[in-house]
Amino acid sequence: MNLIAVGTVAFDSIETPFAKQDRVIGGAATYITLAASHFIKSSGLISVVGDDFPQDMLDEMASRGINQEGLQIKQGEKSFFWAGKYHFDLNSRDTLITDLNVLATFNPVVPASYHGCEFLMLGNLAPSVQMQVIEQIPNRPKLVVLDTMNFWMDSALEDLHAVLKKIDVLTINDEEARQLAGEYSLVKAARKILTMGPKYLIIKKGEHGALLFDEHNVFYAPALPLEEVADPTGAGDTFAGGFIGYLAKTQNISFENMKRAVIVGSAMASFTCEKFGPARLLELTQEEINDRIEQFVALTEFEIALED
Amino acid sequence: MNLIAVGTVAFDSIETPFAKQDRVIGGAATYITLAASHFIKSSGLISVVGDDFPQDMLDEMASRGINQEGLQIKQGEKSFFWAGKYHFDLNSRDTLITDLNVLATFNPVVPASYHGCEFLMLGNLAPSVQMQVIEQIPNRPKLVVLDTMNFWMDSALEDLHAVLKKIDVLTINDEEARQLAGEYSLVKAARKILTMGPKYLIIKKGEHGALLFDEHNVFYAPALPLEEVADPTGAGDTFAGGFIGYLAKTQNISFENMKRAVIVGSAMASFTCEKFGPARLLELTQEEINDRIEQFVALTEFEIALED
Repeated sequence: MNLIAVGTVAFDSIETPFAKQDRVIGGAATYITLAASHFIKSSGLISVVGDDFPQDMLDEMASRGINQEGLQIKQGEKSFFWAGKYHFDLNSRDTLITDLNVLATFNPVVPASYHGCEFLMLGNLAPSVQMQVIEQIPNRPKLVVLDTMNFWMDSALEDLHAVLKKIDVLTINDEEARQLAGEYSLVKAARKILTMGPKYLIIKKGEHGALLFDEHNVFYAPALPLEEVADPTGAGDTFAGGFIGYLAKTQNISFENMKRAVIVGSAMASFTCEKFGPARLLELTQEEINDRIEQFVALTEFEIALED
Repeated sequence: MNLIAVGTVAFDSIETPFAKQDRVIGGAATYITLAASHFIKSSGLISVVGDDFPQDMLDEMASRGINQEGLQIKQGEKSFFWAGKYHFDLNSRDTLITDLNVLATFNPVVPASYHGCEFLMLGNLAPSVQMQVIEQIPNRPKLVVLDTMNFWMDSALEDLHAVLKKIDVLTINDEEARQLAGEYSLVKAARKILTMGPKYLIIKKGEHGALLFDEHNVFYAPALPLEEVADPTGAGDTFAGGFIGYLAKTQNISFENMKRAVIVGSAMASFTCEKFGPARLLELTQEEINDRIEQFVALTEFEIALED
């Protein structure tokens, strides 16, 4: 297997202005591996759940090539649980409940069979936990992508800076980029963050798309304007899974190919928004994915001749 | 002349988190005609100022082919004045002062020499004033573009609906689109607004770019991530001026060409943000415009092969 993903596997209770669902399957690593499974035949999961997590979902993931040797199942304990409520704009939300449960004592163990992985996706978790994973992999992967959030900037900034030195691609949202860099301009913020370790920065802007920066280039991927957004939960993780899944499939980490991977990630994220939880990721066909990518092409392409 | 623009010619006092400037030259029609002057040799201005408006600015505009037969200069009266303060994100602002002055009694007069215009830009003004202009033009122009704002949706909705029936392209921001349609989804909002009269809708999202809709298509133009934003005042009007100026130059109102015009408008708007007031529009060269349009091409272009 050439892709390993670490992150939560969990339950979410989600309230939007239009609907509410309790204890939906969720978790960063769930979305990441399910999104990536549309591009690669096998991946390795590193996570922890309690004995309350449904076996049929684990079976479904296994049937999609998601290896669970790195998944710890803690008997007599409960899975991570998050409850949140979206604002009317669906672009921002409040956290109502965070029950760490099994996550409170999570020490990731990377099985020997995962050691040769070329692509490593570190989903949002404590930076020290993300670092534990990096340290257990003897051969440095070809590409390490890390997702994080403002919570760790507030509570574990030193650990975050340590792990940033070990990675290739950082994915955060625009407010987090501004916070991490202490710069309002995203161009300046990107430049500063690219001196902290990562060679690439992806700034996720939700319904406003995503920006990919390296030292010399910038690429703007739009978000697809959607007729209905049922639930944006997991969109960022789905983006990450589509992004790294496409790179792992194509085995090309040039900026040009990362642009394509950002489009693929954006296309996958747009599906996740259409239903509660990961439901859309479980039913997607290759044809639907192709159609969606073609919509992104149509959404942005133009040709213009310049004047003398 | 094949382009006529109506709108304010005014003074603005502008405060950003980083700087402040009093009584900068401003006004929707100022930005529109200056932006358009980079694409067409002549245009006609319809507006009103007091005797406090500097003659050298009017001379400068005249030197750029901006005909002022439709500009009323009211002796002993003052020009429209707006003062505003931007929030830290520079994407939102509070109005501090609005002194209508000459605008309070503005009755636009369309000179006979403007009657043959093919492209009409109705800058943000009371919808009834925009209607007065339409009604004075005997031959319906090839393309009528209207800009408006939430203030008129709150205070003159009936007049606004009446003028919407007479136009081809509406430009508003995302919150205004949601308000006008009573729909949160921009896709649904666009569909509804396109039943109100306009055949095209442009939703301006500031630093998040712009969306162009017709009945069947949507195009997403990014905004260029800027290193420094000095002052976004006039960016929306500059966008409109670049958009209609490009269309008037190319004489092509297909959706494909409107996509180019949206990119041109976005490029022009990015310049306006770089200095206070219309300063950048007065010094721009064709080479700078071409370079900027090439940056937009580089920002968005990608090629992707689909899987079987």
